[in-house]
Amino acid sequence: MTKFVYLFEEGNANMRDLLGGKGAGLAEMTNLGMPVPRGFTITSEACNDYYAKNKSIADNIREEISKSLDTLQEETGKELGNPEKPLLVSVRSGARASMPGMMDTVLNLGLNDQVVEGLASLTDNRRFAYDSYRRFIMMFADVVMEIDKQEFESILDAAKAARGVEADIDLTAEDLEDVTHKSLARYEEIKGEPFPQDPIVQLYEAVEAVFRSWDNPRAQYYRRMNNIPHSWGTAVNVQEMVYGNMGNDSGSGVAFSRSPSIGDNHIYGEFLPNAQGEDVVAGVRTPVDLEKMKEWLPEVYDQFTDLAKRLESHYGDMQDIEFTIEKGKLFLLQTRNGKRTAQAAMKIAVDMYEEGLVSKERALMQINPVSLDTLLHPRFSEEELKKVKPICSGLPASPGAASGSIVFDANEARKQALKGRKVILIRQETSPEDIEGMNLAQGILTARGGMTSHAAVVARGMGKPCITGCSSLLIDEKNKTVTIDGVDYKKGDILSLDGSTGQVYADEIPTVDAEIAGNFETIMEWAKEISKMNVRANADKAEDVAKAIELGAGGVGLTRTEHMFFEKDRIFDFRKMILSKTKEEREEALKVIQPIQESDFEGIFRALNGLPATIRLLDPPLHEFLPKKGAEINELAESMGMKPKDVKKVIKSLQELNPMLGMRGCRLAIIFPEIPRMQTAAIIQAAINVYKEGIPVHPEIMVPLISTVKELHFLRQLISEEADRLIAEAGVDIHYTIGTMIEIPRAALTADEIGKEADFFSFGTNDLTQMGFGLSRDDAGRVLDAYYKQGIFENDPTAVLDQKGVGRMMDIAAREGRAANPNIHLGVCGEHGGEPSSVKFCQKLDFDYVSCSPFRVPIAILSAAQAEIESPREYLSSDLKKYFGRK
Amino acid sequence: MTKFVYLFEEGNANMRDLLGGKGAGLAEMTNLGMPVPRGFTITSEACNDYYAKNKSIADNIREEISKSLDTLQEETGKELGNPEKPLLVSVRSGARASMPGMMDTVLNLGLNDQVVEGLASLTDNRRFAYDSYRRFIMMFADVVMEIDKQEFESILDAAKAARGVEADIDLTAEDLEDVTHKSLARYEEIKGEPFPQDPIVQLYEAVEAVFRSWDNPRAQYYRRMNNIPHSWGTAVNVQEMVYGNMGNDSGSGVAFSRSPSIGDNHIYGEFLPNAQGEDVVAGVRTPVDLEKMKEWLPEVYDQFTDLAKRLESHYGDMQDIEFTIEKGKLFLLQTRNGKRTAQAAMKIAVDMYEEGLVSKERALMQINPVSLDTLLHPRFSEEELKKVKPICSGLPASPGAASGSIVFDANEARKQALKGRKVILIRQETSPEDIEGMNLAQGILTARGGMTSHAAVVARGMGKPCITGCSSLLIDEKNKTVTIDGVDYKKGDILSLDGSTGQVYADEIPTVDAEIAGNFETIMEWAKEISKMNVRANADKAEDVAKAIELGAGGVGLTRTEHMFFEKDRIFDFRKMILSKTKEEREEALKVIQPIQESDFEGIFRALNGLPATIRLLDPPLHEFLPKKGAEINELAESMGMKPKDVKKVIKSLQELNPMLGMRGCRLAIIFPEIPRMQTAAIIQAAINVYKEGIPVHPEIMVPLISTVKELHFLRQLISEEADRLIAEAGVDIHYTIGTMIEIPRAALTADEIGKEADFFSFGTNDLTQMGFGLSRDDAGRVLDAYYKQGIFENDPTAVLDQKGVGRMMDIAAREGRAANPNIHLGVCGEHGGEPSSVKFCQKLDFDYVSCSPFRVPIAILSAAQAEIESPREYLSSDLKKYFGRK
Repeated sequence: MTKFVYLFEEGNANMRDLLGGKGAGLAEMTNLGMPVPRGFTITSEACNDYYAKNKSIADNIREEISKSLDTLQEETGKELGNPEKPLLVSVRSGARASMPGMMDTVLNLGLNDQVVEGLASLTDNRRFAYDSYRRFIMMFADVVMEIDKQEFESILDAAKAARGVEADIDLTAEDLEDVTHKSLARYEEIKGEPFPQDPIVQLYEAVEAVFRSWDNPRAQYYRRMNNIPHSWGTAVNVQEMVYGNMGNDSGSGVAFSRSPSIGDNHIYGEFLPNAQGEDVVAGVRTPVDLEKMKEWLPEVYDQFTDLAKRLESHYGDMQDIEFTIEKGKLFLLQTRNGKRTAQAAMKIAVDMYEEGLVSKERALMQINPVSLDTLLHPRFSEEELKKVKPICSGLPASPGAASGSIVFDANEARKQALKGRKVILIRQETSPEDIEGMNLAQGILTARGGMTSHAAVVARGMGKPCITGCSSLLIDEKNKTVTIDGVDYKKGDILSLDGSTGQVYADEIPTVDAEIAGNFETIMEWAKEISKMNVRANADKAEDVAKAIELGAGGVGLTRTEHMFFEKDRIFDFRKMILSKTKEEREEALKVIQPIQESDFEGIFRALNGLPATIRLLDPPLHEFLPKKGAEINELAESMGMKPKDVKKVIKSLQELNPMLGMRGCRLAIIFPEIPRMQTAAIIQAAINVYKEGIPVHPEIMVPLISTVKELHFLRQLISEEADRLIAEAGVDIHYTIGTMIEIPRAALTADEIGKEADFFSFGTNDLTQMGFGLSRDDAGRVLDAYYKQGIFENDPTAVLDQKGVGRMMDIAAREGRAANPNIHLGVCGEHGGEPSSVKFCQKLDFDYVSCSPFRVPIAILSAAQAEIESPREYLSSDLKKYFGRK
Repeated sequence: MTKFVYLFEEGNANMRDLLGGKGAGLAEMTNLGMPVPRGFTITSEACNDYYAKNKSIADNIREEISKSLDTLQEETGKELGNPEKPLLVSVRSGARASMPGMMDTVLNLGLNDQVVEGLASLTDNRRFAYDSYRRFIMMFADVVMEIDKQEFESILDAAKAARGVEADIDLTAEDLEDVTHKSLARYEEIKGEPFPQDPIVQLYEAVEAVFRSWDNPRAQYYRRMNNIPHSWGTAVNVQEMVYGNMGNDSGSGVAFSRSPSIGDNHIYGEFLPNAQGEDVVAGVRTPVDLEKMKEWLPEVYDQFTDLAKRLESHYGDMQDIEFTIEKGKLFLLQTRNGKRTAQAAMKIAVDMYEEGLVSKERALMQINPVSLDTLLHPRFSEEELKKVKPICSGLPASPGAASGSIVFDANEARKQALKGRKVILIRQETSPEDIEGMNLAQGILTARGGMTSHAAVVARGMGKPCITGCSSLLIDEKNKTVTIDGVDYKKGDILSLDGSTGQVYADEIPTVDAEIAGNFETIMEWAKEISKMNVRANADKAEDVAKAIELGAGGVGLTRTEHMFFEKDRIFDFRKMILSKTKEEREEALKVIQPIQESDFEGIFRALNGLPATIRLLDPPLHEFLPKKGAEINELAESMGMKPKDVKKVIKSLQELNPMLGMRGCRLAIIFPEIPRMQTAAIIQAAINVYKEGIPVHPEIMVPLISTVKELHFLRQLISEEADRLIAEAGVDIHYTIGTMIEIPRAALTADEIGKEADFFSFGTNDLTQMGFGLSRDDAGRVLDAYYKQGIFENDPTAVLDQKGVGRMMDIAAREGRAANPNIHLGVCGEHGGEPSSVKFCQKLDFDYVSCSPFRVPIAILSAAQAEIESPREYLSSDLKKYFGRK
């Protein structure tokens, strides 16, 4: 039978999933013989059971709680509700992952009208007893009964006013006794029933309240931001109270075993004499530096630093420890791996390895891959950020921070930027023709679109802050204003964007530059050593490729050839190609474009210096390339000897109701075979030219949007014909491969056929997610908002791979593709390639590589290494079947 | 080892897949002892092998051909190329399914400069010998060498001119000898090499040419129209020639064992004395009625009619027989099941059953389900159709025929129709607001859209002819003209549409009314007796439901509640609902709508009289309901006390880049829960009201566009809360169910979870196909054209279910849904529910029902019965696993 309640001495650090981080830590410390107040943990499974049973605690769980309580009473020699030897407990949440401040806590539980008197005489401190009781009443009312705290705060405020004092500390025992009675009366008035005097009733109510708090809105939001599944649940810790507020030989504090901001190997912390832990957190009084404790209670200080170092070395990670000193006796109340900046994380990892405290593997596991983002992008100064309030928020689509004057179109962005102004580009949504303006802007803000919208993908590629799907923007493009929450902002007004949080500010905020610290390279080196999965970059230009390689990329997983066309001087020729009426006209236009592509590819091959490059054939619908404005249309018409009317007709004829599901990808290539023929020629000719310079080349030609093997068969023939001809003519020994995106559900489900025609599969998880969910990234905003609110989505599937549904298609395709072609190479080039949990999933599928935007490469490398450490591939390959439930 | 060549005596009628229809027929007749010229069949597997080996005949197949030829020579006592005893053969295609005229034939093979002389002296007919040779040269040049026939026709024409005669028959032996020599010279001139004199070379060249003709464009097109897979291949029949042109005791003819147009039990046919079979087909001379043969060659006539009846009874189906009489001796050259009209098919089936010739099952198998369509819709008179030429063609989206003057918008259609004019509505594509105009038009023609586009689906539901995706239309809406192939057609000009073929005519063509013949009901009764799968209808109004039941439907599989809103007097209130700013405003607007929906549902429940009705909650994106024109916007704004500007803003804010993948289906319901609550109330209240009238009701509430079980869980709670409350209040005993569409790939792939929350799955194969292929029905036109041309698609997956990919999702969902919920009901409500091969697939998946537009119900019923006959469900359920390759 499942055990739902564990005494601290029954648990250990490995039972984190069951006991939560706090419970596992308390158990571990208890078993290490460290001074921990006694108690027990109700498991996270009990929480799940609570929700499954329609929010009620099952009888068997009640029984277990009751038994553990008996043991606790025996061990402490105290009893709940017994005024002679009162047991007072705290009831605290504690999930598997740390969720600081998200859930609820009740302290001093066990007090009632009798016990408070007992406590007063036992401690000989009436003031302390009543202060504890009135705090308990308020906390219980707030947490359990959802009564506004203010109802009780106002009673306290009235007492202070009557007494003419400012601080709680200046109230007497009698004052507090009076406040307590008034609070009890207020409680009864609001609830219509007296405050529960039975400590057992108090206990169960508090446990349920903590369970419930797992599902409060801020906890939901936190989980979503941190990819914590609802199904984990929270454990509940019931622990004997200790008091830091019992005089000047008492106090409470928090300390880190190393510096969380820079990583120095010194204990850093703060404490408050004569105070409870809650007072430190609440910020009522200003705590003092831990160093001061050395003078005040030197022995306790030594004991504490010794314990802290022992805990750090025991856990193999920097610890964040809460402690209380009750009448000179030290108690540890919590230990956990400390949160830290990316810089600190890297320094601590490298230092602890060098100090011989951890292996490279454990050192790497200390670092949160996502935190590396902050190293690569400027951010707002923490100090300055405290002074301002956001005016609205959207999706944190691309990290980094920027301030600038707002503009409403890409041309204006370009104009202003060329004058040296810093601009923020605001758009309903961006489109490929905005690329130049985006590149010149400091940051991009859009009203629509999700985490993989055009703006998001392009901005991440540029390493530029971007906030998308900010639905509170009401943009008036004509008058160049945006209304946010009723306030109008005009062109030229200053806004600041924090792309890491999605928040928008109406102030100019100073930024702190990005800097890659010294330990970065060591960490990347270690990660690459351990990881068996390559990390490539999605990069379209030589300079992006160079950046990606600098950041650790082992090749290019996706070059979007269309991005090359959007530059001012090129798009014109490309438009001519689109408007061509005959194959001959089109081929003529393509001849102008070919050398441009060729030289772009040469740049990429040179930058790669022998690393592989997957180059995708033209993908987006042609209408994306056509002009929208009258002047541009006229110019184009004139140069082609067409009437503007006719150009408009062509533009209209290319418009589609659902472009995402229309004439794009390999469909273009099949309808206009001269386009892939030209692109193949450009790729292979570039490869030949660079090869002749003595640089090795590995072109991989990728066909997008395959839904049936026959498409690939047709294009494979066409591509290899052209490529083989050029290679034979040049008389060089170049090897190239031809593969396909797997981004359409049907392609995944027929991979057994497609695998036979493909040298590689690159999973386009963006489209696979869009089509798999039937939800367009561009239109998902409102749906996501509602779905989060209803708990239907825990996160955005375009950002965090949906393993159950989309992942199942990937599993099917990977498995059947490999069966059809044992030499097939598998990788991912969707945006998920830079998201840690998705990268780990790809490792479980035994992929050869993941590919992501250059600035996410370090995240992917570290994630891949962590995946390998968590479940080594040798183990996986034999166990892969079991993992995916295969027969 | 695979056997690739069969002598006729080695085959039989069951080997149709291998030997093709013609080959299997010749073998069967041979074994029945009927007079059939000797020969052998090269199998369709040899054809596939030919394509697999890059269009070459493998050595082992050549060996088999050579051996069979030896046997043929032995048996006939003749030899290829031997002038003394020349063997002449025909080389004919013959696929599994009849594809009349689609592939190639070579006759008189074996002739060369020597053999022709031998033949002349053996037959003592020099004219015959040279006429045969010159025909052979022309046919060989045309079929094998792709030389234009005209090159040789002109030689013949010159000879006739020189001789001053009109008919071939008036040329002498010498004339034809001269024509032969000139033809040989022309051949050499064009090819640069002499005409092959070696009959073995001739034979292999001809066999390859027949194989190749399997893939010619007209054969491809025919296959696509008739759902014949490329993989079937064609067999090749090599058969000793017999000659109907050897004098007045010779002749050739074709006959049906019963009337193919009305089904009478009489032999109907035609013959040409002194002519080869080809002459009958070519229509050079006018054949005479078979009855005449009675007088001319009474014994042969008796022999033939006797054989024909024997064949009919042997095959259990009406036969289409080709014969030749060579010097008074009868030879049968082909027998096959005859093509027939739907009326004839039904009469023949019922008659043959009543005559005791076939079982009900075999009788039903005689009828092509698709042909039933012609019974239900008016069509153009065959006579009149011969006089006109189509000006362009599109997709045959909804059958039937209509002529009318053209209009370019739905309002105009309404205006003209109300004046009593017959109109054809031409649109780029239709949208829901066109519905009234569509209903009043005679037919609909669109430039875009596929077989499941809005226009197609709605027109089929209305039983109205519709042609979609007619890409040669260049519509100028402003000037109300359409340009087709360079010709302008103005508003008011007459066009005619044949929705069964997709052809458009610029003439007014008289139509023949639809009439349901007397045997229709018998056939439907039999089919329903045999089928174990129910057929329901997709119907939104009481009158459509009544029509569907009249046509045999066993319930409603899909009521689209949104269609109820598009009528003039209702859409206004619905628009108010959409524009509501608060939940309260919206509820207010919904209150106005609820009684309208309620009374619609009452009508449906009454019409159903106890049959089940699946009613789907609101599905399409809200912006589809909003006005597009200024005047309508102003009117709406005024009535809502809003500024037109603000209404436009709302409209703009609801626009989506990819509405198919946007805010629709259950997403709407989750964002605005008051909508499904109102709809549930309307459904259940209507059910209660009708129930109280003493009519049983079976409401099934269907949630569209589910992608995750949590959506369904949320809505199931909401729906059942509302429904249970109303039922309890009314104190009635009504049972309702709640289920979901499976139309999003992820839903299919997570059916194990979704099945737990659903009473039924209704597969929305339209969306499942669109998302599965990543191809929107509205934008597929150009892609399909190109894909047919390249042989990538053999048919439109939105019309004919893609069993491999989309079907796999259905299989997964059906299997895992059933495992999760053994009582789950499974059905299809996509357009595939009325397409025979798709219906048969659903039967294989053991579905409970298919649902389709009312006019397709008979097709589905017959298809379901045929599926059951072909593979009975008892057998299936045990063998289902094997069929789908399950473990």
